[in-house]
Amino acid sequence: MAKDTQPKMTNEPTGALGAVRIVLVNTTHPGNIGGVARAMKNMGLSDLRLVNPQGYPSAEATARASGAHDLLARARVHDDLDTALAGCCRVLGTSARQRTLRWPELTPRAAAADLLQAASSGPVALLFGRERTGLTNEELDRCQALVTIPTHPDYSSLNLAAAVQVLTYELRLAALEAGQGDAAPVESPGGGEVGAPHEELERFYAHLEETLQVLDFLDPDNPRHLMRRLRRLFARAHPSVNEVNILRGILTHAARGPVGRGNPERD
Amino acid sequence: MAKDTQPKMTNEPTGALGAVRIVLVNTTHPGNIGGVARAMKNMGLSDLRLVNPQGYPSAEATARASGAHDLLARARVHDDLDTALAGCCRVLGTSARQRTLRWPELTPRAAAADLLQAASSGPVALLFGRERTGLTNEELDRCQALVTIPTHPDYSSLNLAAAVQVLTYELRLAALEAGQGDAAPVESPGGGEVGAPHEELERFYAHLEETLQVLDFLDPDNPRHLMRRLRRLFARAHPSVNEVNILRGILTHAARGPVGRGNPERD
Repeated sequence: MAKDTQPKMTNEPTGALGAVRIVLVNTTHPGNIGGVARAMKNMGLSDLRLVNPQGYPSAEATARASGAHDLLARARVHDDLDTALAGCCRVLGTSARQRTLRWPELTPRAAAADLLQAASSGPVALLFGRERTGLTNEELDRCQALVTIPTHPDYSSLNLAAAVQVLTYELRLAALEAGQGDAAPVESPGGGEVGAPHEELERFYAHLEETLQVLDFLDPDNPRHLMRRLRRLFARAHPSVNEVNILRGILTHAARGPVGRGNPERD
Repeated sequence: MAKDTQPKMTNEPTGALGAVRIVLVNTTHPGNIGGVARAMKNMGLSDLRLVNPQGYPSAEATARASGAHDLLARARVHDDLDTALAGCCRVLGTSARQRTLRWPELTPRAAAADLLQAASSGPVALLFGRERTGLTNEELDRCQALVTIPTHPDYSSLNLAAAVQVLTYELRLAALEAGQGDAAPVESPGGGEVGAPHEELERFYAHLEETLQVLDFLDPDNPRHLMRRLRRLFARAHPSVNEVNILRGILTHAARGPVGRGNPERD
């Protein structure tokens, strides 16, 4: 895999994703090949192999590839599957249906982990068959296991590019988890500002209670009940220091009252 | 597979997947709408909403829908986003990029778990923006959190149908994990209260903005900035209907002004 060091696409993954080959067998609709190229580039893969594609190259493939023309241009076309798989130390096939002669069957997530682990030793391949009929038994014989994407039992035929999207998405997640990706992971919820410390929150709650008294909103017989509800509400939001300041600014304005009604505090 | 003998998609999920609404805003390429319908049906979803789609209905959409014509035929077209979101107790938006004004950001997996949990209380929505420009800030204001699909940093623009495929795949996995797949009944809401639906939250935000104007708290040069911050704060808290009512009660009192200072509205 000297591909990673090649001039084009210098920001391509340097990790295991670069060793994963996507092999499309006898694809019927060239538009799907373009969609596959786009899905691969989105997820950081780069090695596309086409075994006897029909009607390819084609303007439709190029159009569907959108910004992934470079990847499509470097896709290699092969006359037979074995040439496309040359050098691969692990080969998985995709299949929509259960077969009587069962291969080991993996979920997309398990398959991604399996392929990435094997990719540390050399190139690996993921095979996708024809749009209508999938892979033949002879082609499946080249596979060590099958991957099945879980679908609604009544409608299990995924679009080819959609199937590649799901599998390459799982490959990318697996690479990111293993620290083999190229980008920072998505941030956890609430990212950004630091949460307000306890004492700031308590000052806010005291300010809120005082303001609600001024506004005659608290039930004099049971003021704690409402305050407890409001505390739970705001606690769930984890307000930042800035947000607490905004809320306290609103309280200060509320205690002064509305403008423009002969309010001596405001006009 | 009793499909042929049954009227319309009666084998569609009766579980939480059936409560997840996919909302496409202002889609430019009708082919993508067909691809989305197919992806949804593959993954067991059925509720597709189109807000001002361009060039739709179209033969291209129908062609790309493949075996999902029935789902496409039942897709509802709306003039505005709020109508499409009516009744939803949780709304997540998809976004390819980080924004300065940050919403809570979820991975597709976390978003799927989040939506399915909320779906036990009522309909939930997942928003997808325009192919080139995504969702506007005004549309994102309707969302409680954003979902970002991890992509290669140099090429992050997923095809619309591919993005829907990834998210609906994660939703299906989450439903299968939770045992809420195709046949499982909707879970009854847990101990907590039901989240306020979209339209109640929007009425609260409108009430809040109006009150802040009366209190002279909004920056007249940039009123949207503060409102956006406050929306994010309250969205994180998932207010219930009761809590929204309490907050609106406070606003009503605040607009009348404080008691005991010669305020003609109160004394």
